[in-house]
Amino acid sequence: MIKTISTNKPGWKDTLKGVLARGRNTPKGVEKTVGSIIEEIRTRGDTALFEYARKLDRFDPFEEGFIIDSGEIDRAAQGVDPDLYAALKIAAERIDAFHRHQVEESWISMDEKGVILGQKITPIESVGVYVPGGKNAFPSTLLMNVIPAKIAGVERIEVASPTPDGQVNPVLLAAAKIAGVKKIYRMGGAQAIAALAFGTDIVPAVDKVVGPGNIYVANAKKALLGTIGIDSFAGPSEILVIADDRADPRMVAMDMLSQAEHDEDACAILVTPHKELATRVLDLLSEFMEGLPRRQIIRSSLERHGACIITRDLSEAIEVSNMVAPEHLELMVQDPYAYLGCIRNAGAIFLGTWAPEAIGDYMAGPNHTLPTASTSRFSSPLGVYDFVKRSSIISFSGELMEALGEPAARIARAENLEAHARSVEERLK
Amino acid sequence: MIKTISTNKPGWKDTLKGVLARGRNTPKGVEKTVGSIIEEIRTRGDTALFEYARKLDRFDPFEEGFIIDSGEIDRAAQGVDPDLYAALKIAAERIDAFHRHQVEESWISMDEKGVILGQKITPIESVGVYVPGGKNAFPSTLLMNVIPAKIAGVERIEVASPTPDGQVNPVLLAAAKIAGVKKIYRMGGAQAIAALAFGTDIVPAVDKVVGPGNIYVANAKKALLGTIGIDSFAGPSEILVIADDRADPRMVAMDMLSQAEHDEDACAILVTPHKELATRVLDLLSEFMEGLPRRQIIRSSLERHGACIITRDLSEAIEVSNMVAPEHLELMVQDPYAYLGCIRNAGAIFLGTWAPEAIGDYMAGPNHTLPTASTSRFSSPLGVYDFVKRSSIISFSGELMEALGEPAARIARAENLEAHARSVEERLK
Repeated sequence: MIKTISTNKPGWKDTLKGVLARGRNTPKGVEKTVGSIIEEIRTRGDTALFEYARKLDRFDPFEEGFIIDSGEIDRAAQGVDPDLYAALKIAAERIDAFHRHQVEESWISMDEKGVILGQKITPIESVGVYVPGGKNAFPSTLLMNVIPAKIAGVERIEVASPTPDGQVNPVLLAAAKIAGVKKIYRMGGAQAIAALAFGTDIVPAVDKVVGPGNIYVANAKKALLGTIGIDSFAGPSEILVIADDRADPRMVAMDMLSQAEHDEDACAILVTPHKELATRVLDLLSEFMEGLPRRQIIRSSLERHGACIITRDLSEAIEVSNMVAPEHLELMVQDPYAYLGCIRNAGAIFLGTWAPEAIGDYMAGPNHTLPTASTSRFSSPLGVYDFVKRSSIISFSGELMEALGEPAARIARAENLEAHARSVEERLK
Repeated sequence: MIKTISTNKPGWKDTLKGVLARGRNTPKGVEKTVGSIIEEIRTRGDTALFEYARKLDRFDPFEEGFIIDSGEIDRAAQGVDPDLYAALKIAAERIDAFHRHQVEESWISMDEKGVILGQKITPIESVGVYVPGGKNAFPSTLLMNVIPAKIAGVERIEVASPTPDGQVNPVLLAAAKIAGVKKIYRMGGAQAIAALAFGTDIVPAVDKVVGPGNIYVANAKKALLGTIGIDSFAGPSEILVIADDRADPRMVAMDMLSQAEHDEDACAILVTPHKELATRVLDLLSEFMEGLPRRQIIRSSLERHGACIITRDLSEAIEVSNMVAPEHLELMVQDPYAYLGCIRNAGAIFLGTWAPEAIGDYMAGPNHTLPTASTSRFSSPLGVYDFVKRSSIISFSGELMEALGEPAARIARAENLEAHARSVEERLK
């Protein structure tokens, strides 16, 4: 079911590339559809938005309401299983505690010539959070996106979530309640992103939109980049487990399955120098899979994007991991800290037996929105830093202008920018 | 020549919107051309790259060379006017000193239950820097992009710069020498970005590409986002000057002209409660303009995107500025620090008489790559933070797993992710 790749066979890197390759390309027609949806929302506003609700989400906003208000959120929260509500609350508290470490302060530096330079950190004024809805709504996603924005000091957070067939997910509303969200717009897809970008009579425009979504949502975000800021693109998920012979094969297998169940494009890779472990994990994958409700998705995911890579040693396993640049990396080895410094590319690094990826998805505290599809080479987890921006602060002095005005004007003239030179020289008169 | 807008006239916001509106839309055909250039480079590599050099930059890489090596960089640097070289060196030192403040450290937090959480900061392994070339090459741009990448610890920095008609700009090479760049690829346009993204036999692939460029470069970056990381989109430049009656009208006018000379889409706005100052500045704009080599660009820029906004008071001037979200904001007022806290949206804030925007472009130290076209609402200046990425560190403990495993599994099941729940429960056995 799952490929075994050995690094002592030539061409193994190409085989691995095949495992990692997932549909990066947007299916034909999506861009065009998204373009016309955006244009409809821009020119026709709420009228178009409500039409899409009826057509694509099969509910009537006039009859069933378009905004879920705080009353409805409160009622739903009260109706949720108290243990589940308590669990979400613990999760929220831990997410909050972790993300407070990410708060940055404005700073200045000064010198004795009177120059002050620095950076001002300012929260983004308004942010839209998109949360996939319906049966597969992820309440944890709402927490992971809203809490860092609140900590950053974003004044206005607008939450959008589709309600396909009019179905509202009460657990999502419970998470909204816990995160302090007072209303949710029942909208989804490219139309939701466009409404947040341009604003309509009902939906106020925001400066940035974050949150995962399907291919239409992702394409709308990319198309509207510039009009609004966006987070990084959430693509198919990956886990890479590095294991030595001390690792529990049951845990390794279960963690790989937890990744594979996300969708058929999800990718689960074991990297180990120990063939016996690999064999045992492969057996357990088949065994455990049978008892899982999503076994069809899992099978398809493992067949297409699963791999077991046998390396010469643990150092080579780390090299392979850096090459893959996985979203989630588990170090199921005896002394995981010994390898921490060697990890170059990973969204989140899970150390040791007690840190399965799934605990990171919900309870650990760090964000579960992580760079996917090898983008951890250059991207970071979602964080408070995504909800602030920096402004340079520049205060010069007469003394330094005397010394540096002339060299500055010289560079300006070398760049054929005469007015730049004269603007500086105006101060030297 | 330049519009005067008074905030006590209804509809002034729409007039202002008209002033700010600049061609955000890509001209027809550009996307398609860029798409086919990318595909050519991806499939045919250097062969295609060299063809484009001959066709678009009108030089033959086989005869004239494709890589400017350190010998050529050294020779060019020696030939540059020593005063100019010294000026570039001072600029580099000040850029270096400022950006060192932006270095971030990895951190961890720990609790008494054995949990360790944190974030690892890792330099991006390889970065491409695109520097526009030819007659309008900006040596300062090379410094502003390469120096922060070096400080971040990027191991491999590949510089690409086109040499239209084979012309190499010696001042650009001098800046390269100062920044420690050992070679420059003579390539430009979408083909340069594609070569850096995919790699060719000659050009090694990189993880992220930064640097300004024309519409083809910008579109190639957007199209390749995901394969590579990119910086924010450099659009047409803006300055907004807030001035009170203490401001020197000559300086205000000269600073506005220094912005307007960039290109016809550049935008220069004065915001002041003092009509007399505005009138004086308008007169001086016309007067000074006549002596400037780029007066045609300036006239066109001011006519289309220049404005003088008369506000009730300085507080309203700040409000206007926050609405515009300018790339450059000059506070030419008596006590600029009094307003610093009220500035929400600006790429760089220049305080007082001695801080013309042009000093920030070259000598102050902060980066001159700033968010344009109102994107300072959600974007930041280029900085060391653009050349690192974060990875979450998650190390849990048996004790906390005992307490939080069950709540985590409960949330997983509420999200229909059974394998997630079992992966956690495997630890509870």
